[in-house]
Amino acid sequence: MTYCVGLLLERGIAFASDTRTNAGFDNIATFPKLHVWEKPGDRVIVLLSAGNLAVTQAVVSQLNEETGDGADEDGDTLHTVTTMFQAARLVGDAVRQVRRDDGEALEANSESFSVSFILGGQIGAEAPRLFQVYSAGNFIEATDDTPFFQIGEHKYGKPILDRVAARDMRVGEAAKLILLSFDSTLRSNLSVGMPIDMLLYRKDTLEVTDRRRIGEDDEYFRNLSAAWSDALREAFAKIDSMED
Amino acid sequence: MTYCVGLLLERGIAFASDTRTNAGFDNIATFPKLHVWEKPGDRVIVLLSAGNLAVTQAVVSQLNEETGDGADEDGDTLHTVTTMFQAARLVGDAVRQVRRDDGEALEANSESFSVSFILGGQIGAEAPRLFQVYSAGNFIEATDDTPFFQIGEHKYGKPILDRVAARDMRVGEAAKLILLSFDSTLRSNLSVGMPIDMLLYRKDTLEVTDRRRIGEDDEYFRNLSAAWSDALREAFAKIDSMED
Repeated sequence: MTYCVGLLLERGIAFASDTRTNAGFDNIATFPKLHVWEKPGDRVIVLLSAGNLAVTQAVVSQLNEETGDGADEDGDTLHTVTTMFQAARLVGDAVRQVRRDDGEALEANSESFSVSFILGGQIGAEAPRLFQVYSAGNFIEATDDTPFFQIGEHKYGKPILDRVAARDMRVGEAAKLILLSFDSTLRSNLSVGMPIDMLLYRKDTLEVTDRRRIGEDDEYFRNLSAAWSDALREAFAKIDSMED
Repeated sequence: MTYCVGLLLERGIAFASDTRTNAGFDNIATFPKLHVWEKPGDRVIVLLSAGNLAVTQAVVSQLNEETGDGADEDGDTLHTVTTMFQAARLVGDAVRQVRRDDGEALEANSESFSVSFILGGQIGAEAPRLFQVYSAGNFIEATDDTPFFQIGEHKYGKPILDRVAARDMRVGEAAKLILLSFDSTLRSNLSVGMPIDMLLYRKDTLEVTDRRRIGEDDEYFRNLSAAWSDALREAFAKIDSMED
């Protein structure tokens, strides 16, 4: 299982993914579900992936091909497209290509072709944008009303996002919120596992300045988790009970 | 979809269920997913149901038959068994009987035989007990380590239960906790709907004294929901952010 979140802010985008996989191997060792295409001063594109690992890896590999499969009809790749919308189209096309290549064999093996992606970033002068790409290769974009996307095991961590997430949060606040959402998920589903990969993209920097791996021994996360449990219990105690 | 919770306390058991069904009809009009067998002074048995409505109704109907299908080999029914364990066995047997009757036809129609139940209550001098009964008719019992069961759409409402639920809560506190768990679920899944049916059973009363229906206009629930949102946001603000 997987849990990934992307939260679109006025000041940037906060991304996080867990790193546990049940497939036993992963050839992108350091950031297994968080993939970055960066050209400092020009673009930062981040892709979070959930679903069948062979499929998500095939999609990422395809996107890394500079020619042929990784390019669209105009020969554009993630390194050359000029808008995030075009980037989302490339990801969708890659998903469709992998389905054409592997879908039938997967079905024959009773495995489902189920993947999903969160894609976000900034290209040039365009504002940062955030998309969710589905198994069918189609996609939706985050708006003011729905500034975040979750993929994978999303339910445990959704209530806190629903209540607190807002476009105008500071980046550090958004990071705190996302980690709380992870904390709820990690407590409830063992197949979502530490460490957490986090990337905080700040608008108009056009480079990756803040990418971190948060492990079991991360002091901030440990304190956050404990403080949140205490705060929840306090908040619970403060609210009137039903009469006994 | 459905959401039901049972929480076993030292002082009793708190039960709640939503009431929304997608099947379009329900022949137990007032408490569609919360069913009670009561013999004041002798027993209170409560059954919460989730899953295919035709199946859960068939199980409940079977349990209401005083003879034949509703009775075990000794002719016992929910009105005559002497322990909650035996009651759980009767429910499991009823599930198996309905599967024998309807399972094949459901499968032929590509519908799955998926149901689950929370069964709890008290019979005579035995302490209150709480069980979860599965589709296969087998069941597990709540313990000190796991004092609550959830069936149906359980994920959204689990984090708060995980953090706060305890055997030694007062009944009114437990009611508050369960309603908060419902609040998170109702916000995130439209197919779980108000009103909520709640039954608070107090140990050794051996009768139903506190059964209520909580609708959209319930003042306590409205205040609770608003106070909890505020409390969560406050608690969130109090915790240190990651540096920006």
